Order: sequence, then structure tokens, then C-alpha cells
Amino acid sequence: MAIWNGRVLNLCILWLLVSIVLLNGIDCHSRKKKLPKPCRNLVLYFHDIIYNGKNAGNATSTLVAAPQGANLTIMTGNYHFGDLSVFDDPITVDNNLHSPPVGRAQGFYFYDMKNTFSAWLGFTFVLNSTDYKGTITFGGADPILAKYRDISVVGGTGDFLMARGIATIDTDAYEGDVYFRLRVNITLYECY
Amino acid sequence: MAIWNGRVLNLCILWLLVSIVLLNGIDCHSRKKKLPKPCRNLVLYFHDIIYNGKNAGNATSTLVAAPQGANLTIMTGNYHFGDLSVFDDPITVDNNLHSPPVGRAQGFYFYDMKNTFSAWLGFTFVLNSTDYKGTITFGGADPILAKYRDISVVGGTGDFLMARGIATIDTDAYEGDVYFRLRVNITLYECY
Amino acid sequence: MAIWNGRVLNLCILWLLVSIVLLNGIDCHSRKKKLPKPCRNLVLYFHDIIYNGKNAGNATSTLVAAPQGANLTIMTGNYHFGDLSVFDDPITVDNNLHSPPVGRAQGFYFYDMKNTFSAWLGFTFVLNSTDYKGTITFGGADPILAKYRDISVVGGTGDFLMARGIATIDTDAYEGDVYFRLRVNITLYECY
Repeated sequence: MAIWNGRVLNLCILWLLVSIVLLNGIDCHSRKKKLPKPCRNLVLYFHDIIYNGKNAGNATSTLVAAPQGANLTIMTGNYHFGDLSVFDDPITVDNNLHSPPVGRAQGFYFYDMKNTFSAWLGFTFVLNSTDYKGTITFGGADPILAKYRDISVVGGTGDFLMARGIATIDTDAYEGDVYFRLRVNITLYECY
Repeated sequence: MAIWNGRVLNLCILWLLVSIVLLNGIDCHSRKKKLPKPCRNLVLYFHDIIYNGKNAGNATSTLVAAPQGANLTIMTGNYHFGDLSVFDDPITVDNNLHSPPVGRAQGFYFYDMKNTFSAWLGFTFVLNSTDYKGTITFGGADPILAKYRDISVVGGTGDFLMARGIATIDTDAYEGDVYFRLRVNITLYECY
Repeated sequence: MAIWNGRVLNLCILWLLVSIVLLNGIDCHSRKKKLPKPCRNLVLYFHDIIYNGKNAGNATSTLVAAPQGANLTIMTGNYHFGDLSVFDDPITVDNNLHSPPVGRAQGFYFYDMKNTFSAWLGFTFVLNSTDYKGTITFGGADPILAKYRDISVVGGTGDFLMARGIATIDTDAYEGDVYFRLRVNITLYECY
């Protein structure tokens, strides 16, 4: 009997040790964390119509800053280096400018390279549809001639409270210096 | 005896299985996470006095960019669309401009809509008081005519190292294009 | 026998309770979290050469906005208050401007104080070397006369996907209003 009880006791002690090892293995802050599965994915488009001095009615963005000597109704040469634009662009679920907008993309971008077209973006998706109510804020470099560019999700509110993740941007249309349309594929890894 | 020992053994095995289920249930990265309780709340005010060409002494912000043709001492019409301002505003714990500041709100905002007053903010609370030493950085859209607007906490240093959360802003006072005071209710969900 | 078995059973029940306590103790979202150990550290330099009207060839940044009356090839007096600059600066692993760059620091800064030199930064390290491929985006106040200043990491992509942490900046060289070099000591606390 004592022998049998001893075995059972040993089993329990063994399990105690195994449990401790398992518990230690659950480390939310190991040096390198395993990437969680995405918790949300959105694909949206936004449409930017740049003010050129003649389209005040339907322009959605305007140059507000540029290097010395610039006229703010004309993009500078020199790869638009230093041109800074403020925008309030409609967001649609497809690539049609005239589709009912589900929100507005609001923020700014500027061109920041002298030897190629490249930009830096800071903006917020203000979403207000039956599907989504809330904001997602993005920031980062946008090497616009690359097919796909990743920028960072830096914050979120409402349905996207404290969202974390990235957005992969591609230029879905580009019509001279008047109109461009970006496709934004948002992958969130942390959702509340 | 064998029967009794068998029961105890079964109990331990049962508990092993239950434990495994429980351990698997602890997933720091489930698809949708439970919102943690706020770990810190701060309510602070900041005060913005806009340079108008005559108040260089006590202005705390100035227009630095605007659409073509603008004079940077006058807010543009058109809902100030495109006006971009840089600021260094005192932060107080109450709504009195003349209270001893506990820090400075430093950053920029710009108006980004053509058919209503709406802005986009990027700024940092630089706090240096007996209660708080550190910075909180915010970013996001500010539809300023709404009573309460949520913007994202995008970073923090010092006492607010890697802070995450949101700030609910309301316009506590607005005096033409010369002075406004924002009440900022900061809720942090991650504190170190 | 029954007594012995009872003891073993009690031991298992005790362990059940201990386990539950331990399991509850694993809270990924306690009020104040323990700071994890850094998962990555990088020390990099970036070099800013400001356009002054004569150095278009090798300038890496340019003023694009400033208060009323400014010429964008001359930094304003008044501690450069309101001067906003866009940059695309080479990043090197040592303090030599002519070392092979490992990436580009792209973004903007502006001076935002009237009574001392202080700035606000929003920029991205676009890294493309054998060691690192990806971006880190930073934002925050930079009281540039302090020896060391902490700014926030607000996002990351590629090798730095969803990076979190801070960067400690110090001014490694400053040559009038023409050149400065910042040493950036990046500490990441969350890596994937």
C-alpha cells in the first residue's frame, strides 16, 4: 500500500514540476515574440485630387509648404522634393472614386527625396460606416515607385482602439500631378 | 486498495488534462483581446495663443504653412483648410491659463477640411512636475466641432515609457482665432 | 489505507488550488507591467545638411515652412521658432558622413520654442543593409540642447514589424546652421 501511495505521490510531484516548467514557458515578453495571427484585415481605397489653382471645387488636397521660391499650385520639379500637402480624401471599398465613401483619409504627406519620387505620410482613416466606426492612424516612409510599400499603424480609436499592425500600400492609379488612388491593405495583429 | 489508488491516479490524470486545457486557454494573442483595465488616467489642459502679427510676446503658436496666396498672420477662410500651425503651449492641471504649468504641449496641427472645421494633430506632452516626468506623444484626426474626440496615444518616454491608450479631447474654450483651450482626458491601458 | 489515500487526494486538491492561484497570477495586462528586457539594440548616426540656397547639390534637407516673412534659405532668428524642414539623410553605423550608408532617415522636424532651441521630430529609418531590412518610425519632442533626449518608437515594418521602444538621441556634431549629426541609440522592447 505504502508503495502504491508513494507512486501516486511521486506522480503528483512530477506533475508539479512539469506544471512549473509549463508555467515558466508562458512568457508574454520573451526576447523575440511569436507573431500573432492577424485579428483583422481591411482593404480600402482613398482618392487624392491635388489643388492646381483651377480645381478648388473638387480638389481634396492642397500644397501648403514647399522649398524657397515655390508656387503652391504647381508641384516642384526635383521630384517634388519638399512639397508638403494636406488632404481630406474620400475612402471607398472599391477603386471607384464615385462609390459612396465609408470614411475620410485625413492627414499630410510630403515628398522627401531629390533623386526619386518618395514620400512620408502621416494620416488617419476616419471610418464611419455600418461596418466600422473609429479611426486608424498611420505613419511612415512611402517609397512610392515600389509596387508595395509597408507603413506602420501607429494608433487607433473606437472599433480600432489601440490597433497595432501595418498597412501595405500600392498605387492603384496615378494621373499626372492631379489624381492618385492608393489601395491600402491593413493587417492588424492586436484588436480589442 | 488497488481500486482506491486507481481513483487517485485517475484524478491526477483528469487534473493533468484540465491543466492542459487551462494552459492553452491563456493566449496572450487571441484574435480579439480583452481590453485591460486602464492603468493610468490624467486630465490636463493646454492653452494655444495663435500669432496674429501683433502678439509676438505672448503667442504660443504660429502659422507656418498655408495654401497659395496666404498671409501667415491671418487664418484662411474656407474653414482654415490647409493652415498648418506649430505650437509650444503651456499645460495646466486646471482650466486657468495662468496656473503654474506642469509641462508643455509641443507639436503641430493643421486644418484639413474644406466644408467644416476639422484638424489633424501631432504633438507631445512634455511633462516635468513632481507628479510626472516624461513624455506622451499623440496623433490623429480631431473633428473639432464634435464635443468629444478621441485621438491615439502613439508613444511615451520616462514615466510613460511605451504608453498605449487614447486621449479624449474637448474644446474647453474658444475665443475667435486667437485663443483656444483643450481639455485632454488621457487613458492609458499599458504602463511600465 | 483510506487515511493514506485521503492524504494523497488532499495533496492533489491542494495542488489544484495552488495551480489556480498561479494561473491567475499570469496576467498579461496587470495595472503596471514589468518592463521586459530589451530585445534589440541599434546605435546609428544620421547626417543632416540643410539647404541654404547655395548647396543644392549636397543638401539633404530643406526648409519648407516658416512663420510670416521668412526666406526659406535662412533659418529664422527667434530660436528658429516655426521653421519646418523636410529631410532625407544618410544613416551610417559610425560618425563618418562618408561611410557607406545603411539606410536613409526620412521625415521632418520643426523648431517649436521661442526662448530656446527645441524641436519636434517625425521620421522613419528606412534600413536596407545585410543586417537589417525594414523601417522604424519615431516621433516626439526633441529638446535639442539637452545632452540625451528620449523619443518614442511609434511603429515598424519588415525586420522591425510593430517595434516598440524608445530612441535616445544625442547631438554628435553641430556646425552652425549647415550640418548636424545625431547619434540614435534605439532600444526595442518588443520584437517579432
